[in-house]
Amino acid sequence: MRARSFFISTLKEAPADADIVSQQLMIRAGMIKKLAAGVYTYMPMGLRSLRKIENIIREEMNRAGAIELLLPMVQPAELWQESGRWEKYGPELLRFKDRHQRDFVIQPTSEEVITDFARQEIRSWRQLPVNLYQIQTKFRDERRPRFGVMRGREFTMKDGYSFDRDQQGALKSYDKMYAAYQRIFTRLGLTFRAVAADTGSIGGDRSHEFQVIADTGEDLIAYCPDSDFAANIELAPAPCVIEKREEPKEAMQKVPTPGREKCEAVVELLGRELTSSMKSVVLAAERFNEKGEAVEPQIVMILLRADHDLNEVKAGKLPELKDGFRFATDAEIIKAFGCKPGYLGPVGIKSDIVVYADLTAAKMSDFICGANEEGYHITGVNWGRDLPEPKVADLRNVVEGDASPDGKGTIRLQRGIEVGHVFYLGTKYSQALNATYLDENGKPQVLEMGCYGIGVSRLLGAAIEQGHDEQGIIWPESIAPFTTVICPMNYSKSEMVREAADKIYEDLKAAGVDVILDDREMRPGVMFAEWELIGVPHRIVVGERGLKNGEVEYAYRRTIKEKQMVKTEAIVDFILNR
Amino acid sequence: MRARSFFISTLKEAPADADIVSQQLMIRAGMIKKLAAGVYTYMPMGLRSLRKIENIIREEMNRAGAIELLLPMVQPAELWQESGRWEKYGPELLRFKDRHQRDFVIQPTSEEVITDFARQEIRSWRQLPVNLYQIQTKFRDERRPRFGVMRGREFTMKDGYSFDRDQQGALKSYDKMYAAYQRIFTRLGLTFRAVAADTGSIGGDRSHEFQVIADTGEDLIAYCPDSDFAANIELAPAPCVIEKREEPKEAMQKVPTPGREKCEAVVELLGRELTSSMKSVVLAAERFNEKGEAVEPQIVMILLRADHDLNEVKAGKLPELKDGFRFATDAEIIKAFGCKPGYLGPVGIKSDIVVYADLTAAKMSDFICGANEEGYHITGVNWGRDLPEPKVADLRNVVEGDASPDGKGTIRLQRGIEVGHVFYLGTKYSQALNATYLDENGKPQVLEMGCYGIGVSRLLGAAIEQGHDEQGIIWPESIAPFTTVICPMNYSKSEMVREAADKIYEDLKAAGVDVILDDREMRPGVMFAEWELIGVPHRIVVGERGLKNGEVEYAYRRTIKEKQMVKTEAIVDFILNR
Repeated sequence: MRARSFFISTLKEAPADADIVSQQLMIRAGMIKKLAAGVYTYMPMGLRSLRKIENIIREEMNRAGAIELLLPMVQPAELWQESGRWEKYGPELLRFKDRHQRDFVIQPTSEEVITDFARQEIRSWRQLPVNLYQIQTKFRDERRPRFGVMRGREFTMKDGYSFDRDQQGALKSYDKMYAAYQRIFTRLGLTFRAVAADTGSIGGDRSHEFQVIADTGEDLIAYCPDSDFAANIELAPAPCVIEKREEPKEAMQKVPTPGREKCEAVVELLGRELTSSMKSVVLAAERFNEKGEAVEPQIVMILLRADHDLNEVKAGKLPELKDGFRFATDAEIIKAFGCKPGYLGPVGIKSDIVVYADLTAAKMSDFICGANEEGYHITGVNWGRDLPEPKVADLRNVVEGDASPDGKGTIRLQRGIEVGHVFYLGTKYSQALNATYLDENGKPQVLEMGCYGIGVSRLLGAAIEQGHDEQGIIWPESIAPFTTVICPMNYSKSEMVREAADKIYEDLKAAGVDVILDDREMRPGVMFAEWELIGVPHRIVVGERGLKNGEVEYAYRRTIKEKQMVKTEAIVDFILNR
Repeated sequence: MRARSFFISTLKEAPADADIVSQQLMIRAGMIKKLAAGVYTYMPMGLRSLRKIENIIREEMNRAGAIELLLPMVQPAELWQESGRWEKYGPELLRFKDRHQRDFVIQPTSEEVITDFARQEIRSWRQLPVNLYQIQTKFRDERRPRFGVMRGREFTMKDGYSFDRDQQGALKSYDKMYAAYQRIFTRLGLTFRAVAADTGSIGGDRSHEFQVIADTGEDLIAYCPDSDFAANIELAPAPCVIEKREEPKEAMQKVPTPGREKCEAVVELLGRELTSSMKSVVLAAERFNEKGEAVEPQIVMILLRADHDLNEVKAGKLPELKDGFRFATDAEIIKAFGCKPGYLGPVGIKSDIVVYADLTAAKMSDFICGANEEGYHITGVNWGRDLPEPKVADLRNVVEGDASPDGKGTIRLQRGIEVGHVFYLGTKYSQALNATYLDENGKPQVLEMGCYGIGVSRLLGAAIEQGHDEQGIIWPESIAPFTTVICPMNYSKSEMVREAADKIYEDLKAAGVDVILDDREMRPGVMFAEWELIGVPHRIVVGERGLKNGEVEYAYRRTIKEKQMVKTEAIVDFILNR
């Protein structure tokens, strides 16, 4: 490609509403252009990168035996009603009526339609397993679209669905996709982690998020540098950090702590460590009588060592909370404990309050907690002696330094951007839509499913969050809109330069390099800055001075300040061997 | 590809609601599957063909210097309001409100958004010309979707838009696209015509439809077998077929023609030729007073030789009708002529009725027409003698045998399916959206535009309408989901067959042939019927009997009954040289 025949459009400044570096750089580099909130045009430069991502995904999906199809973007409401998501899905689901007043949606995902496809198309066990995917535009009407293509409303996704005879088969399909995703993100040149993730209401342990590592990520990942362990913080098991509960040494004592509602403030006043203090969190789960009317909620008190934080996903798995919970209101707390928040504790409370202690909290002794009386805490509290032994569960987020659950080292935390998700679905949708096949005995059996998503357009943003510097984007080679740029000095005026640049351009093209020749005759500084912003990995500068020595200048985007002279006749091999 | 690893799903019968052969065959061959009215899933087999079409279009668009981008499918109402199409576009335009009650559309076409893009991105004459295109899903909420992918609601389109400094440049861009379209449809292996088409309200003469020739087409094309002339019937000039008007020979005479309302019935009664009778068509154009209130419409009487038909597009260009017209109602006709339809004529009518005669009608003499009195006609009517000379215009459809307007032969008619359209837009959208660039003198100038569409998914249907027989689809090689199928006899049981089939398969793949090996071990008759239905161009049958003579059987889909034995070692070259 020659720059004059292409569409390059860069900006000095990002618009004020670009709220994250990848969005700023994509707009400045002329990759995308905003049309409406969360709705972007892919400019020619951006589309090249998007297509490269799509092609890598397509190749690896095909290699893994998945088969591509294309489901409609517009889907009839009936199928969404059958699965129950017509009602359950929030306003993110764009619903509309056609001219005949029939209800439709613009698909944000396609479980319903693919399950409907399968129940019509899959008749026999002989047709299984099968794995179908598509790469397609989706729409999710986010309340607050942000972060450019990372949380847009219109976006490109690869969504795939596997169908199997039984759970064993489904888990095999899952593992295949897991391996394919490893290959995909490796080929995309990204630093990523496959992270165990919550399975929500499906249950089971087969759900992994693929997270691109970036400090700006919304997700927190716990991993062990000395082993394979990696999990979304929501799911990472947090160990008990106290080996053995000490015998009580102190007597229980009520102490005035006026205005000290936080554990930090209490221990500061008392001259104690934060780890000697117990944090109380009060949750509420709705309850209903036989007529279905809401009655008083179940109050659950969670106790954590004061330096630990509640993990809500883990709390949500407690029997009392598994059907949904929320934080208790101040009014509910006052009613249950006779005291406002800030001075709560588990001592002497009503018997209908359920108390859970985190693994670590349950091993504490001589601890400090609220006295359930405004302005007072209690010190020297001990389980068994001063209050009943609590129910115990893992209820906190892991922190750096916690032991890895595989016993192979200690946990570290990092931030990530979710770009892929593999999920064992079981029969959630096939049951709802009655998607069955006939087994060897001619008996109908419900299909076992898995679903596999990749945020194609989001990957562009994630790659930039991971790779950029002050000059602009640093693309992985496989996603860069072009891998090599030739910058000639005085292209039109110097015949020597023009001939050399043209020859290198043609030779690189012939060698299969995705090269662009900048024939726009801009000032060198402006031209270099533009290609650094766009983030093309390899830059070749062709100038008379170098050519007189039979050389051109090479620079690698990641180390753009380190220039190197390369013999003109060797430059093609040099690029091919980088 | 091996058939077992692919998704093949054929049907013996088409569903009852499939109303055209291409739709029936696409559904039976497992190319598409209906999800809702006018909304289809592309099954793996169909998607392969769709992608092949897309790729050919993409290659040729790029070769012609056009640059691909991707505009959003969801577009804000504001731009459509700016162009005026928010109001003007009928209910085919899917309008919806997002969760914040803002108005949006799902794009059926993208003139507004690309013009908005251009007005932001194109600043200087130095950036011109530029031609931008996309290949993308569109939605048009057809009242009565039909013909499968030929008139669906959700469909894939290539839409492109050129921007130029002036009309001369725009016409150059137009010609480039015209040439690119010729290459595209030629490469797609279709018999087609580029046909001059109506430019509607834009004016000018640069609008061509690309029509795939098929008897089932909705459009009628006039062409000259001895020259390049081809035009949509709406636009083809119709000559006067009477060289010179004869002198009057008869006296005018009122004759009773009770119950004879059609010209055919009148001439039958009178024992005359149809060509001696004049047909009257009465049109009405709304008129408004200064307050904008509708007043009596302008009545226009069109006279045609009775064997000719009115061309409404031509009528719409008459000065009295150019702002829109309709057929007059019976009540309006009775009011204007004092007589019901069936007995109307131009003799003795009120002076405020405008009369136009078609070129041929104006040369008629001693003709028959209605007497404006129920049950009566007049014979021996002559222009100038019995009534004023009429205004004259080309107002009829051409018929077979008419002289070609280029004087090189006679017109023939054939039916076609519109699959592409190139259109010189001028400044229609750029003016409305104020899309300007700065010329060499720094003065803003309105951009000159062209638009260029190809119905990508419709092409699948058109190709089948053009190519099919009783067995099924006959794909052009370039669109076929696979170009070659290997059908082994007893694949699993005969080692000889398996080895030979596998080797041919691997060799063909290595030679770049898009081949599928049918390893499903079906009965030969069923297997052959399936591939004939799917329409793969080349079939190789590998069986023990042939192999013992060192041969395999070859058949070409278009002449499927002619089988031919080919030496096994020569089959790859044979296929490559077909």
